[in-house]
Amino acid sequence: MAAAAPPPPPAPAPSAPTGLPDSDSTPVGHPLFSRIRLATPLDIPHIHKLIHQMAIYEKLTHLFTATESSLASNLFKSPPFHSFTIFLLEVSSQPFEKDTNFHSQNFTPIEKIINLDHSLIDPEAETFTNGINGDVVVAGFVLFFPNYSTFLGKPGFYVEDLFVRECYRRKGLGKMLLSAVASQAVKMGYGRVEWIVLDWNVNAIKFYEEMGANVLPEWRICRLTGPALEAYRDAL
Amino acid sequence: MAAAAPPPPPAPAPSAPTGLPDSDSTPVGHPLFSRIRLATPLDIPHIHKLIHQMAIYEKLTHLFTATESSLASNLFKSPPFHSFTIFLLEVSSQPFEKDTNFHSQNFTPIEKIINLDHSLIDPEAETFTNGINGDVVVAGFVLFFPNYSTFLGKPGFYVEDLFVRECYRRKGLGKMLLSAVASQAVKMGYGRVEWIVLDWNVNAIKFYEEMGANVLPEWRICRLTGPALEAYRDAL
Repeated sequence: MAAAAPPPPPAPAPSAPTGLPDSDSTPVGHPLFSRIRLATPLDIPHIHKLIHQMAIYEKLTHLFTATESSLASNLFKSPPFHSFTIFLLEVSSQPFEKDTNFHSQNFTPIEKIINLDHSLIDPEAETFTNGINGDVVVAGFVLFFPNYSTFLGKPGFYVEDLFVRECYRRKGLGKMLLSAVASQAVKMGYGRVEWIVLDWNVNAIKFYEEMGANVLPEWRICRLTGPALEAYRDAL
Repeated sequence: MAAAAPPPPPAPAPSAPTGLPDSDSTPVGHPLFSRIRLATPLDIPHIHKLIHQMAIYEKLTHLFTATESSLASNLFKSPPFHSFTIFLLEVSSQPFEKDTNFHSQNFTPIEKIINLDHSLIDPEAETFTNGINGDVVVAGFVLFFPNYSTFLGKPGFYVEDLFVRECYRRKGLGKMLLSAVASQAVKMGYGRVEWIVLDWNVNAIKFYEEMGANVLPEWRICRLTGPALEAYRDAL
C-alpha cells in the first residue's frame, strides 16, 4: 500500500510493577528485549506475512497482490538506505545474543529493554520465530526509501509502511521504529522524513504530532495505476 | 518542495492557423519542436533556475535553500530511474539536430512537434539557452524517483516536481512530461505513478483526472523536518 500503517497510540509510561519489589528494590517486571536491525532476503517470508496482516488491519486485502517472489525480485537490490530499505523489529524475553551478522558498516542494530507489567503471550510466536535464536520473534517492520526535496536541494526518507503486530502494540515499539528512521535521516544529513496518514485517524495524527511531525492539510495524493497507467505504454 | 507543481491546464486542441492556407493547403503554423531527454550534470544551472522559478510560482521562496552545489552533490549519483531522475524539456523553432550524446541505453529522447498559431516570444531565452545547439532552450523539467508499494510488491514512480516555464504553458508540454514518466513506468513494469496536488487547485485536479489519475481524498502528508527532525539524532 502507499501509506504508513497507522501506529498504535503512544505507549503509556511503564507503570509500577504489580509484583512485590525484591530484596534490593529492583522492580520485578517482565522485560521485553527489543531490537531493530536491517532486514535481509532471509526475512522475506516474515515480511510478506507482516504486509498481509497490515492489509487485513486496513481492510485492503483486495489490493494485496504481493508474493514472496515479487518482494524478492524488487527488494535488497541496492545498499541499505539508497533505495527500498526495511528495518525489522524483533523481540525476545531473553537478551539478544550478539549476532555480528546483523552489524554492518551501514547500520548497527538498536536494542532497547521494555519493562512490561505482565508477561506477554504471542499467539503467533511460532509463525514469526526465526527458528535460530531461541525465542526471538519478528514483531514488526518499517519500509522506507529516499525521496528528494528540490527546495532543500537534498534527500529525505519516505516511510511507506510502519507495522507492529497486534500483541506488541501500545508499548512504544512503533515510535521506536519511526525514531530509528528519523535518527538515520539526521545521521545522513537528510532534510525530511515524510509519510501519510488517514485524515480520520485522530489517534495516529496525535501520535505523529507528538513526535514532532506536521500534518499538511492541503495536499492530496494523485495516483495513476492499473489500466489508466497501462494506457501510457506507447503514449509518446 | 515536496510536490508536483500544478501544471498548466490541458492544451486546447490546436486551432486553425490564423494565416491563409498556402497553395497546397498545408496549414501555415509556427512549429515548436519539443524534446524530452535525460538531464545531465551540465544541466544543473538551468535546473536550479527552474526550481527557483517554481518556488516563486508557488510563493514558497522562503523554503528555497537549494544551491547548484547542493543539487550537484545529490543528483546524478545513480543510473537513471534507480534513484532521483530528471527529464528535461527543451524547445526550439528548428528541428533538433540528432545529438547522440543524449541517446543512452536507458532512454531515447522523445520528440514532438507542436503547431502554434503564433510565433512565440521567450523573454528568458538567453538565460535558458544551452549555448550550443542554435536556438534550443530549456522550457521545463520533471523530477521523479522510485517509490514502493508493499501491497503490489513492486516499485512505482513518485513525481516530486513538474514545471514548465510560463511562456510555454497551455501547449500540452506539462502533459507530455508527465506522460513520459508514466510511459517509462509501464515499460519498467512498475505499478503506479503518484504525485501530490493542492486541494484548492481545481484546474490541476481536473487536468490530472483527465489524464487518468485518481485523487485520494482521505490521505494527509506528515512531515518531520528542521529542529523537530534534528532532535532524533541520538534518540535511540
